[in-house]
Amino acid sequence: IKENMPIIYGVTSTYKRYLQLPELTRLSQTLLHIPKFHWILTEDSYQKTKTVTKFLQKSGLNYTHLNTKNNIPPTKFIKDYNTRRMGLNWIRENVPPTKDAIMYFIDDDNTYSFKLFDEIRATKRAAVWQVGLVGGILNEGPVKCENGKVLEWKAYWWPDRLIPIDMAGFAVHVKLLFERPKAEFRDLPDMESDFLSSLCVTRDNIEANNCNDVLVWHTQTKTPEIEGNEILPRQYKTTQRKLTT
Amino acid sequence: IKENMPIIYGVTSTYKRYLQLPELTRLSQTLLHIPKFHWILTEDSYQKTKTVTKFLQKSGLNYTHLNTKNNIPPTKFIKDYNTRRMGLNWIRENVPPTKDAIMYFIDDDNTYSFKLFDEIRATKRAAVWQVGLVGGILNEGPVKCENGKVLEWKAYWWPDRLIPIDMAGFAVHVKLLFERPKAEFRDLPDMESDFLSSLCVTRDNIEANNCNDVLVWHTQTKTPEIEGNEILPRQYKTTQRKLTT
Repeated sequence: IKENMPIIYGVTSTYKRYLQLPELTRLSQTLLHIPKFHWILTEDSYQKTKTVTKFLQKSGLNYTHLNTKNNIPPTKFIKDYNTRRMGLNWIRENVPPTKDAIMYFIDDDNTYSFKLFDEIRATKRAAVWQVGLVGGILNEGPVKCENGKVLEWKAYWWPDRLIPIDMAGFAVHVKLLFERPKAEFRDLPDMESDFLSSLCVTRDNIEANNCNDVLVWHTQTKTPEIEGNEILPRQYKTTQRKLTT
Repeated sequence: IKENMPIIYGVTSTYKRYLQLPELTRLSQTLLHIPKFHWILTEDSYQKTKTVTKFLQKSGLNYTHLNTKNNIPPTKFIKDYNTRRMGLNWIRENVPPTKDAIMYFIDDDNTYSFKLFDEIRATKRAAVWQVGLVGGILNEGPVKCENGKVLEWKAYWWPDRLIPIDMAGFAVHVKLLFERPKAEFRDLPDMESDFLSSLCVTRDNIEANNCNDVLVWHTQTKTPEIEGNEILPRQYKTTQRKLTT
């Protein structure tokens, strides 16, 4: 851990569901391994919930807790449009433009090796790496690189996107956000490409230092079947007893 | 971290699949937070695979790598019968009977708060706690306890089991394994109860110190759709180029 290395801002959206606390717990235990990390967690809610507030207080992480309601008005492609924008704009409003800091979007259900964060931290302007189990293939993104440039891209879903990469496959230095103060997410199916493009990032100038290892995977957790819970007060069997001692 | 606290042996079965490396990576990043922990990872395979061997070598964990093939002969209820037995028997064959050590079964896809391991480590003979999102309800197991005894159990699926608890909801001190050297898993739908019962553990003598918090959740990850991978060599679009420098 070096004192002068850049800080990483992780930007995450989260919403209330049965899996929310387990997913956030599991993710936070990965993030605790990362030095100089600040988590910007935006709840999709009208008010900050007790669950997330208490979870963050006990997490041991440096964090900022935000909230806003998504889908007002409803969007077509991006489910977490408002929460994502809020995280992005928090950085523009709270981080000094000269700060050596990297922004990375983290989903609360994806799987991140903590080794990925060394790649993220090496970002000078915008950097890219492979994402596993996304877009219909085992690994999507830059598969061959040399001297920091991508020589070969691999994509099955919409390979003609400006930069064929998932949200988990890139990071940008915050100075780009200040150079292009109006760059934003737009409600498009290729919002990653569109966002990178609005920051003047192209296939030619994006940095790639590791085109061999997959260190982040697009994962989704099955919704649990909780059919018993509502009828439980009548049907479940409890054994209540007095202590015999 | 106290020098004289008991060691925890985590017993895990794993099998080859697209999600294996991400699941093991994510779990290992939780286990790295646990002091005095030894992981017994048994592969369901005829030979130890390179993927798991390399993963363990780089994991930073104390571990024992085992392998055996499951389902010979096929069993009706327990998918990981042979691998589970092998982990259990490794302890009987390699841990001194007098060692202060706790055994806990860890699934490679469940979600564990590292705070759970304080509960596990407090086990004197056999201890129990709630498991989240299992058996059709939000939390199953002991919901009320006093002076280390369970006063009330909650279960929706088969509440009449001897001890209504998931595999993630209990730990046993290894001395029980030596007191009952023939105690084993049997191929039964309530194998947890049956196993605990073979160690002379009952609803009355099982220890319960925390009946408030849910610190482990039964989670399953969706199988990714990798339809593009096999046809990729013909269909995917690559951009190959020579560096212009």
